[in-house]
Amino acid sequence: MNFSSKLLEDAVAEFSKLPGVGQKTALRLVLHLLKQDRAEVDRFSGAISNLRNNIQFCQTCHNISDHVVCEICTAPKRDRGLICVVEDTRDVMAVENTNQYNGLYHVLGGLISPMDGIGPSDLEVDTLVERLKENEVREVIFALSATMEGDTTIFYLNKRLKSYNITISTIARGIAFGGELEYVDELTLGRSIATRVPYENSLSR
Amino acid sequence: MNFSSKLLEDAVAEFSKLPGVGQKTALRLVLHLLKQDRAEVDRFSGAISNLRNNIQFCQTCHNISDHVVCEICTAPKRDRGLICVVEDTRDVMAVENTNQYNGLYHVLGGLISPMDGIGPSDLEVDTLVERLKENEVREVIFALSATMEGDTTIFYLNKRLKSYNITISTIARGIAFGGELEYVDELTLGRSIATRVPYENSLSR
Repeated sequence: MNFSSKLLEDAVAEFSKLPGVGQKTALRLVLHLLKQDRAEVDRFSGAISNLRNNIQFCQTCHNISDHVVCEICTAPKRDRGLICVVEDTRDVMAVENTNQYNGLYHVLGGLISPMDGIGPSDLEVDTLVERLKENEVREVIFALSATMEGDTTIFYLNKRLKSYNITISTIARGIAFGGELEYVDELTLGRSIATRVPYENSLSR
Repeated sequence: MNFSSKLLEDAVAEFSKLPGVGQKTALRLVLHLLKQDRAEVDRFSGAISNLRNNIQFCQTCHNISDHVVCEICTAPKRDRGLICVVEDTRDVMAVENTNQYNGLYHVLGGLISPMDGIGPSDLEVDTLVERLKENEVREVIFALSATMEGDTTIFYLNKRLKSYNITISTIARGIAFGGELEYVDELTLGRSIATRVPYENSLSR
């Protein structure tokens, strides 16, 4: 693209680095910002640098937090015997939105992926093991994506954790609630049949 | 969404204000920025505030520029007898990318849209008329969108400009080059038949 201004070109280049944002979208976003008041744009750029410079991660569960220990880890009404292991903060939000879980979390910060050069030492694995040693944990629940990377991570973590006297579980996999059978993909349907459960167990506790 | 951090929530809220960016996309972009180096994020927010605070518009054509008069307006090899009237800087870039135009531009900064409360006084119309008075302009070419707003703007500008001794033209409308007839929409095809041109004229000059 032929930019008439170096400043414009720089801003578009920076926006283009964002995931899923191409040069045309970047230009649209930048021109939108240009039409806003200066105060509005300063608020935008300020919020970003402020976030990056002042962000903290909870010392216990490694979730994004404004405090040294996050609000979930310090909540008195939470069940401290349950730890839900997730990939990142989005997954914490997704589980919290269900209103079905009242335990604590542990944010790994990624999944094991040899293809991308991400091994266990790049993730918060050792700190998870430490939590099991120190605390009154009864159960660890893996809530990881049903992908190759998620399964690899569960396989590895299971090996590391099974010597401790705790229950290890993963969230249920199968056809989605409300899903029509004819539209379910073959892999999911096949696995759902293979891993069928007694009807009594399928009712939520 | 339940955010674990006020800083995170603020940054997501700012990103959500961008056109076409919802809360989920905003969160994905913010988490991407969080994984970058501080220097990288500072470069991102710096480019934006820098653009907004230091941007200039060419005094002649009102295109975005780093100088008082833009590079196109000062280029010695450009045909100063032609002015192409466009909506915004993106359209200047689109026309420039064709490599088919060697005249000057005039950026209106929008289109007349009574629905949105945008009238001629909100656009760079008077400055266009001034340019016709002072300069050696032979022809004004309207390169505006083929929408209600574009047509309204052309109608109004034509009335304002027709007393001057210049040619007024609009870019050609019709079926796109390479377009298969059966997939062309009815309106475009119907208008293409109604506004058919002698074969000799359809060859590019």
